[in-house]
Amino acid sequence: MTGTVLVTGFEPFDGFEVNPSAEIAKSLDGEVVAAYDVIGHVLALDYRSLGETLERLVTEHRPDVVLACGQANRGAITLERIAINAVSTTREDNTGYAPERDLIIEHGPAAYFATIDVHRLAEVLRTDGIPAEVSYHAGTYGCNWVLYYLLHRAARDEQPERVGFVHIPPLPSQAIQKRLATLPTMGLATSIQAIRLIITHLD
Amino acid sequence: MTGTVLVTGFEPFDGFEVNPSAEIAKSLDGEVVAAYDVIGHVLALDYRSLGETLERLVTEHRPDVVLACGQANRGAITLERIAINAVSTTREDNTGYAPERDLIIEHGPAAYFATIDVHRLAEVLRTDGIPAEVSYHAGTYGCNWVLYYLLHRAARDEQPERVGFVHIPPLPSQAIQKRLATLPTMGLATSIQAIRLIITHLD
Amino acid sequence: MTGTVLVTGFEPFDGFEVNPSAEIAKSLDGEVVAAYDVIGHVLALDYRSLGETLERLVTEHRPDVVLACGQANRGAITLERIAINAVSTTREDNTGYAPERDLIIEHGPAAYFATIDVHRLAEVLRTDGIPAEVSYHAGTYGCNWVLYYLLHRAARDEQPERVGFVHIPPLPSQAIQKRLATLPTMGLATSIQAIRLIITHLD
Amino acid sequence: MTGTVLVTGFEPFDGFEVNPSAEIAKSLDGEVVAAYDVIGHVLALDYRSLGETLERLVTEHRPDVVLACGQANRGAITLERIAINAVSTTREDNTGYAPERDLIIEHGPAAYFATIDVHRLAEVLRTDGIPAEVSYHAGTYGCNWVLYYLLHRAARDEQPERVGFVHIPPLPSQAIQKRLATLPTMGLATSIQAIRLIITHLD
Repeated sequence: MTGTVLVTGFEPFDGFEVNPSAEIAKSLDGEVVAAYDVIGHVLALDYRSLGETLERLVTEHRPDVVLACGQANRGAITLERIAINAVSTTREDNTGYAPERDLIIEHGPAAYFATIDVHRLAEVLRTDGIPAEVSYHAGTYGCNWVLYYLLHRAARDEQPERVGFVHIPPLPSQAIQKRLATLPTMGLATSIQAIRLIITHLD
Repeated sequence: MTGTVLVTGFEPFDGFEVNPSAEIAKSLDGEVVAAYDVIGHVLALDYRSLGETLERLVTEHRPDVVLACGQANRGAITLERIAINAVSTTREDNTGYAPERDLIIEHGPAAYFATIDVHRLAEVLRTDGIPAEVSYHAGTYGCNWVLYYLLHRAARDEQPERVGFVHIPPLPSQAIQKRLATLPTMGLATSIQAIRLIITHLD
Repeated sequence: MTGTVLVTGFEPFDGFEVNPSAEIAKSLDGEVVAAYDVIGHVLALDYRSLGETLERLVTEHRPDVVLACGQANRGAITLERIAINAVSTTREDNTGYAPERDLIIEHGPAAYFATIDVHRLAEVLRTDGIPAEVSYHAGTYGCNWVLYYLLHRAARDEQPERVGFVHIPPLPSQAIQKRLATLPTMGLATSIQAIRLIITHLD
Repeated sequence: MTGTVLVTGFEPFDGFEVNPSAEIAKSLDGEVVAAYDVIGHVLALDYRSLGETLERLVTEHRPDVVLACGQANRGAITLERIAINAVSTTREDNTGYAPERDLIIEHGPAAYFATIDVHRLAEVLRTDGIPAEVSYHAGTYGCNWVLYYLLHRAARDEQPERVGFVHIPPLPSQAIQKRLATLPTMGLATSIQAIRLIITHLD
């Protein structure tokens, strides 16, 4: 074993009954992928406790790599290149809290680049037949929040060594639940395969 | 054997290297699904020869049912409820011809309803875990053209007995070819399964 | 005076405080445009009373032309070419009623073409600098409902002689109310000018 | 006079015959707005000469403020909060050059915040009845490039004192040229008024 990867997902939001990122985290928890022990954890969508939870997870497991995952309503797996110091949404989290438009970290830098090689990893997925692209905007919600927080911590403590964020398409069951003809979807097995491939090709 | 189903697809267009509807037609050609012999045929995207080709296919094979298929950039399988007497596009077909905005059939009725039970069949697919919805607008291009043409013919000749149009999401390889993060996709096996289910539950 | 035009709009819906079509109807009510007396009326968004209200308006005013208007979240004025015999929505009207997916008129034809010259009139607006296009799908909600209902009546009674439906972009104040950066808008004066031009060029 | 504002726009791209940002720059060039002399300049869409041109403009005019403007296909005026160190597009500039996905400035910081108060200024526009929002993603094309470049320069030289980027909706004539029913538009007079208001309320 050469290291530990922490894979996080978010609990369902926006009225959906499931979240593909939570299913991925639960599914990979305890597995060994390539040379890595995988720890999976489902984060509550609660801006006010996110920092504490991430801090606890990183302190407890001392992962070499964190792959945070979330749902985005796009057809492809998207690997986020950058996290910005901004949180701005009028949509409440699952505790009923909507952060005022504001900085995530007062006096923090405007942004950090992710520390996984998103261009190469997206190419690995495409070669395997999985639609995958690099994204330059992770939104101004929980997903960007997690990526910024972890990169800010890593800039200070040099740990975790590598941090990335992967957006996952909704599951087919979510399109059926909401009766949305336009919602892009990806089967869970394919999304899990994408995360396995990313872990396998980290180095 | 109680009958024959003609499944049509379109050849690739808009710069795509493949078209899921063509793959479905080729894949099912010659198969037996439920009580039906399936004949698959790939239509050229050529407005000026479409009528003649459809006429020949229907005369030659005398299908009881036609399920025409085409690609739509939506996440769900969509079953078209209605075809309108209108063709209007500035996008050229694969022969370089863009029909002037116009009626499909001069003095034809404004529209026909499809003669398969789209609401029930969409529910069958959803029950099987496949995102599927009814659509009330098949566009004003080749797909609507084919559905209108066949329903107009059936209104006159009472043959084919039933006619429907099914829009299929792009394949994952198409999102990769075009490098489109937003394009919804569905795997070919799932789309083929959707058409099998529709044939199985026609009655 | 050579005739009467009834211009209808809808009351606000979907949480908006105003509806541009209602503002147009109120603004033009009582005016004379070209050779026409204009009667403006704001319709309640209530599927169950719409028919009765339209019947009363047409009986009372005996308009030669009805220009029904509604809001659509598109940038251009759109003139609807066709109304289909279908109402299907899970969004409740302003009385809390969402029509089951169904026909508007049992045994009615699948569709009617509008009886104003949408292609010529859209060209008139563009020549005047107003973005305007023909649409071939008026939705499956109240707007399509009104157009279908009036065309069905006219097919039976040959009155009103001409019926059209015009979709109007939201007002700038609506984008501000909802804080939507993406919502297309058009100023009220421009939208009113569009309806005046349509009335002026009906013949 | 208390200062100088440089307002830049881009020349037309993507097949459009005009660009609202170029019209604004030409229109305001030489005017006095509030306490500012305005210099307007239309930038060529040429990634390889942009830096040199901006350098020359800033050196020659020594503006206190730069308001760079560009076209975005959104309904509202959008004020960009942040510029990221990334340029990535497969669309060629007007010289036929598409930058490889890459950093704008090797070893530059991941991002800079704009140095105008975007939240307050957007509120000023909304109060005046103009749809306006803050955006947290300026794209990875020329617009973000200009904002990043100028903020990077200002971080080094403390000049220009303030830099912002404003995205402008297309003009109505552009929707007509391209025959796009969905394109959001804003009249030129309104867009010019927005820029005047921003200059007037800079302090």
